[in-house]
Amino acid sequence: MSKFFTEKFAALEPYTPGEQPRDMQYVKLNTNESPFPPSAGVAEAVAKECSKLQLYSDPESTALRKRLAEVYGVKPSQVLVSNGSDEALNFAFMAFADEKSPLAFPDITYGFYPVFAQLNHIPYTQIPLKEDFSIDPADYMAIHKTVVIANPNAPTGMCLPLQDIEDILKSNPGNVVIVDEAYVDFGGESAVKLVEHYENLLVVQTFSKSRSMAGARLGFAIGNEKLIADLNTIRYSTNPYNVNRMTEFAGVAALEENDYYLQNAKTIMANRAWTVSELQKLGFTVLDSKANFVFAKSDKIDGEKLYKELKARGVLVRHFTKARISPYVRITIGTLQQMETLIEKIKEILGA
Amino acid sequence: MSKFFTEKFAALEPYTPGEQPRDMQYVKLNTNESPFPPSAGVAEAVAKECSKLQLYSDPESTALRKRLAEVYGVKPSQVLVSNGSDEALNFAFMAFADEKSPLAFPDITYGFYPVFAQLNHIPYTQIPLKEDFSIDPADYMAIHKTVVIANPNAPTGMCLPLQDIEDILKSNPGNVVIVDEAYVDFGGESAVKLVEHYENLLVVQTFSKSRSMAGARLGFAIGNEKLIADLNTIRYSTNPYNVNRMTEFAGVAALEENDYYLQNAKTIMANRAWTVSELQKLGFTVLDSKANFVFAKSDKIDGEKLYKELKARGVLVRHFTKARISPYVRITIGTLQQMETLIEKIKEILGA
Repeated sequence: MSKFFTEKFAALEPYTPGEQPRDMQYVKLNTNESPFPPSAGVAEAVAKECSKLQLYSDPESTALRKRLAEVYGVKPSQVLVSNGSDEALNFAFMAFADEKSPLAFPDITYGFYPVFAQLNHIPYTQIPLKEDFSIDPADYMAIHKTVVIANPNAPTGMCLPLQDIEDILKSNPGNVVIVDEAYVDFGGESAVKLVEHYENLLVVQTFSKSRSMAGARLGFAIGNEKLIADLNTIRYSTNPYNVNRMTEFAGVAALEENDYYLQNAKTIMANRAWTVSELQKLGFTVLDSKANFVFAKSDKIDGEKLYKELKARGVLVRHFTKARISPYVRITIGTLQQMETLIEKIKEILGA
Repeated sequence: MSKFFTEKFAALEPYTPGEQPRDMQYVKLNTNESPFPPSAGVAEAVAKECSKLQLYSDPESTALRKRLAEVYGVKPSQVLVSNGSDEALNFAFMAFADEKSPLAFPDITYGFYPVFAQLNHIPYTQIPLKEDFSIDPADYMAIHKTVVIANPNAPTGMCLPLQDIEDILKSNPGNVVIVDEAYVDFGGESAVKLVEHYENLLVVQTFSKSRSMAGARLGFAIGNEKLIADLNTIRYSTNPYNVNRMTEFAGVAALEENDYYLQNAKTIMANRAWTVSELQKLGFTVLDSKANFVFAKSDKIDGEKLYKELKARGVLVRHFTKARISPYVRITIGTLQQMETLIEKIKEILGA
């Protein structure tokens, strides 16, 4: 830390992204990326923008918001696009949470929530998941706080039924409920359809997972147009050209080829079912996942050891040191071939 | 504003970007873009990344930082890259300014500085430019504030000699001096060479102007490695994957073809000289610009009227309503043909 660094952030503990080692080629099952490249139209759309790169992107991302609105059945004024969904989440924390409306989210969830809270000096409560790692909706009823729920949750992969989300929305009319649906396309049920009924609902999604564009950085938020206008106040005070023109039109092209991504999501769900079944045969406990990853533990080997042994064999998964989840590893679901390699290496490690 | 919007930001006045109308094709001289497309290697580099878009970008932007370090004669640990230079500026304001180290910058300068200050609740002083629109370095000596100077300044285009920047650095050892060099490649002198001598210097630059990549969103900061580490603390708490993989490698490719951009900058400087001379022949007062734009006024027509009359004739320039500069228009320097059109239309408007 330099002597010039503000005391405001002296205690800040930044987020730790999943490792991206470049020492060798891994079977990379650690950051929930899609194993499938983007659809063909994406490269074409990007190439077209490359010849216009000297011109600023559209600060309103008009074309992309229009297309998103069509796909999700809302108005363009109900859509915000962002430089990855992390940016939309940060904007939402800035706009809708403060001392008077502190944050509430699960103790085990996306690790960036407490970081955003600290960054913005917003008090927050971490509510323990139930013993079975599910969220208890009762914990969030009439809580008088800004609620953040990842649904499906990470790193558990577990899902709340939409009825529970609706009950939380109803019981907190004075606060925004942020539903982070990064993984919703792998078997979850989106809350977007509730947006017309609840002015306090903000749904955040991303192109990083089901739409194979983690490297393009594209997220979006859907909500009541007043909420979106508030997010734009923050955006226009932070980075009005937040989405570059290559990414904007990559997004438009991806939405034109939605069937390709839906098919990929189905493949990943099938590969997930296969992986869960194989892990269970080996004695693993696997949480019920509706995401493109599974969270699994074995009585025969602890999470950190399994992570290390797999890494030594060229397979990367993610391990978290937090006590409650340290027995587990989080495994991204890739191609069937990748999952076969994973299972083969686990068998080798366990001597099974 | 929704009823959920935090009081913290209720008074925030967002930045207003230059207009991007789509009703017709304009000669676009209003947002300081380059009239030249990026070099050939950029599209190739981007196309290569498109096939890997499903994978996250490198949160360290290792390849780009290495190349920037080589070009600017510093170490990679002295370089931060950002989603446009606006992001680097916002991070720097967050990291190095607060109640104890309030901000100081000119009253006439880049309009985003007061917005970033308000966003981060940092007190700020706007120091009037001299009568001739130059910055008086004496105003910033031993000021005990975090100093922000755009050099060349915008929208004046005027430059401070490097010696003045050095004197400001020397007299403020307890505070960071941020030198925003968005326009430095059009005749200014960069402070990067002072970085090894002053631990309190942060230089911010962009690929948006001289490197023809406004639509890719790529900025960078160079400074003492401790300052850069502080900026990374903010970045990893905000958006670790802030630069997408297409933009990162577009930047690398552009740096490989630096001569192309240097040549374009020379052309723009020649076109600027021609434009200044033509405007002066028409009786305009034109400030001495070292940027890719000129700031000019005529006794025969006020700034707003000239802006409107030009727009009606298909030429976009930028007008600011702030009292002290409202007689002026800011005109981006484009191709010679574009500048000829501008002069022709002005003659038409003035009946000259």
